[in-house]
Amino acid sequence: MTAHTPSRLWRNARLATMVAGTNPLGRIEDGVVAARDGHIVYAGPAAGLGAFDAEETIDCGGRWITPGLIDCHTHLVHAGNRAREFEMRLKGASYEEIAKAGGGIISSLRAFRAADEAALIAETLPRLDALIAEGVTTVEIKSGYGLDLSNEIKALRAARRLAEKRPVSVTTSFLGAHAVPPEFKDDRAGYVAHVVEDMLSEIARLGLADAVDAFHETIAFSAEEVDRVFTRARALGLPVKLHADQLHDNGGAALAARHGALSADHIEHASADGIAAMAAAGTVAVLLPGAFYFIHETKKPAVDDMRKAGVPIAIATDNNPGTSPLTSLLLTMNMAATLFGLSVDECLTGVTREAARALGRLGEIGTLEPGKWADLAIWDIEEPAELVYRIGFNPLHGRVWRGNI
Amino acid sequence: MTAHTPSRLWRNARLATMVAGTNPLGRIEDGVVAARDGHIVYAGPAAGLGAFDAEETIDCGGRWITPGLIDCHTHLVHAGNRAREFEMRLKGASYEEIAKAGGGIISSLRAFRAADEAALIAETLPRLDALIAEGVTTVEIKSGYGLDLSNEIKALRAARRLAEKRPVSVTTSFLGAHAVPPEFKDDRAGYVAHVVEDMLSEIARLGLADAVDAFHETIAFSAEEVDRVFTRARALGLPVKLHADQLHDNGGAALAARHGALSADHIEHASADGIAAMAAAGTVAVLLPGAFYFIHETKKPAVDDMRKAGVPIAIATDNNPGTSPLTSLLLTMNMAATLFGLSVDECLTGVTREAARALGRLGEIGTLEPGKWADLAIWDIEEPAELVYRIGFNPLHGRVWRGNI
Ligand SMILES: [Zn+2]
Ligand SMILES: [Zn+2]
Repeated sequence: MTAHTPSRLWRNARLATMVAGTNPLGRIEDGVVAARDGHIVYAGPAAGLGAFDAEETIDCGGRWITPGLIDCHTHLVHAGNRAREFEMRLKGASYEEIAKAGGGIISSLRAFRAADEAALIAETLPRLDALIAEGVTTVEIKSGYGLDLSNEIKALRAARRLAEKRPVSVTTSFLGAHAVPPEFKDDRAGYVAHVVEDMLSEIARLGLADAVDAFHETIAFSAEEVDRVFTRARALGLPVKLHADQLHDNGGAALAARHGALSADHIEHASADGIAAMAAAGTVAVLLPGAFYFIHETKKPAVDDMRKAGVPIAIATDNNPGTSPLTSLLLTMNMAATLFGLSVDECLTGVTREAARALGRLGEIGTLEPGKWADLAIWDIEEPAELVYRIGFNPLHGRVWRGNI
Repeated sequence: MTAHTPSRLWRNARLATMVAGTNPLGRIEDGVVAARDGHIVYAGPAAGLGAFDAEETIDCGGRWITPGLIDCHTHLVHAGNRAREFEMRLKGASYEEIAKAGGGIISSLRAFRAADEAALIAETLPRLDALIAEGVTTVEIKSGYGLDLSNEIKALRAARRLAEKRPVSVTTSFLGAHAVPPEFKDDRAGYVAHVVEDMLSEIARLGLADAVDAFHETIAFSAEEVDRVFTRARALGLPVKLHADQLHDNGGAALAARHGALSADHIEHASADGIAAMAAAGTVAVLLPGAFYFIHETKKPAVDDMRKAGVPIAIATDNNPGTSPLTSLLLTMNMAATLFGLSVDECLTGVTREAARALGRLGEIGTLEPGKWADLAIWDIEEPAELVYRIGFNPLHGRVWRGNI
């Protein structure tokens, strides 16, 4: 955002570096963070800081510093909301009645196609600002409401442009295999072929996608269809991730693992075999309690099995108009604890270190370590647990993105 | 807050006046609100406004105006948090282990007694500010962590002082019958007698309480004990309200109705008879989905029975450190819809008109009508349903308290 980022020293702080180890959260009392050219050069006990010539020194007054938060699964770029549909559902309307009244995913598709890039950006910024206000410094954004080449390109361009409008990093995922658009209603195979043969290569050529996602579910795409999409994505050098086992055990976790996916997301219904396959492949479980809450799911993800198998666990908002109109990563942590039984430590690493891992970016972000971007969140709290415990309260004191305040 | 409140006109607005009638939410397109001396003099269609000489006119750009929101059940004035206890519970700690580690309500009592009035105010202001930031203009605050005369007075004085620190109305409730303090551990009857014979009259004499509350539950006070407290309160001219039927059907709803209570709160387990008694007495049901969510309750309040019986329904945060560390009334609406099945209209009237009724203040606040305080919330939304549908998003554009911007 600026030509020169001054070297800065944050002192008189308590750190939760999120570095894995025996010390939960990598806690450091009387800690400091030193940054030069936007990168961390030191994060640790004040006593261990060698010679460092800071152009600016910030006294944190004993506050806690964590890595900037990472929302690793969102559909943030979308048009319109589904508040009316929500209202109708509360009155007992059936899905058919809602569809007849113009609701459902098709309403999101129509609104999306009707909006130009500028309108999409204008509509998305308040949602992005809500995340940023809570200390988010990296956000993943998926396409998947355009569902034709030009509209999917519009989605990913809008996502990239958001990163120019705000001090935040955006990671994009191409989700052409989100739903079958109306013009292919009677030709699913034709749409999958279009995604695989036309859209993927063009989007890869334009460098618009950092990863490729798909929605594997009985109401969406089959394992064979996902196989085709992922095989092509990998051939183009793009990592993959999967919406898996949300509503049924479809073998999605194992499917994701078989393709070496960065993450398998939702996975409330994943089997023990699927979880074992994820562990072996190093695939991250991205849990999405907002959608679980909003659509009244009852089957919880098998968190204990994931722990035992050693599957890394991240959590995210899944912000989207149909099943998770959620724009608070702090609240997402509370939901993950309250609804899924995640521990405080799992929630906090789930929106930092493990979320970075789910994006394939653990080398750059997610912990306070030398060499990583100086993305920080500074909190008015006495204990990290408060970030998970409170509901609808934002104790952010300050936020740093790439060394800039 | 100011010596003179200018007469003001808010024009080019859509109104949800919340006036009861066949028009849901009292919707008015092309509406205006006119206020003089802090009170509404007109709220209705622009065409119906007669001569009004406004010192200031505000163009609302087509935005929606609702009455300022009312949080009608909170324990906002408290000391310390229970984040560690939350963390221990997630790790599987039993209530005994938590109590041994210094947790539970006794920890809140100790922290409360150790804090002076200034410290309590300083700690409460961020919570109050979180509510205010979402358009809350009136908040009810209970005592109940001091549990001796001087500490209960401290609580209620702090609550009154908050209203001097911020542009917000505070309604206080004396909740001496919240728990038995440790010094009366072996003398429950002695504590109840102390509340009834000493504390109530002194607090009434000082004018510190607008109502008297009690916690009626197997783990708290019996019906006979509540009877004594309420009988004395009524004799002192104070209205009553009750924490009722939260964990079991204790006949609390009927008990509250028998005393003509303003409200019976929680009432997840209230019987059909209790609900009928509330309807007959005009006692408001105050539903508290935050506590239901946080402590993993499963028995939902019998909302359909309440509707059929004609019981007015309000909703509130129940902000408290032990069972509902929730400071978002917008999120409370979403929870009431998602967890309890309230309609959008019920959620919105539940934090305006019905919340005012639950405080016995419907003559002054809760709807946009001439004669009431000009307490307004102005929203960046297309539809009132968005206020309920979104999760962790605050679309407040402006807030007016007693005619002041
Ligand atoms: Zn998703
Ligand atoms: Zn309460």
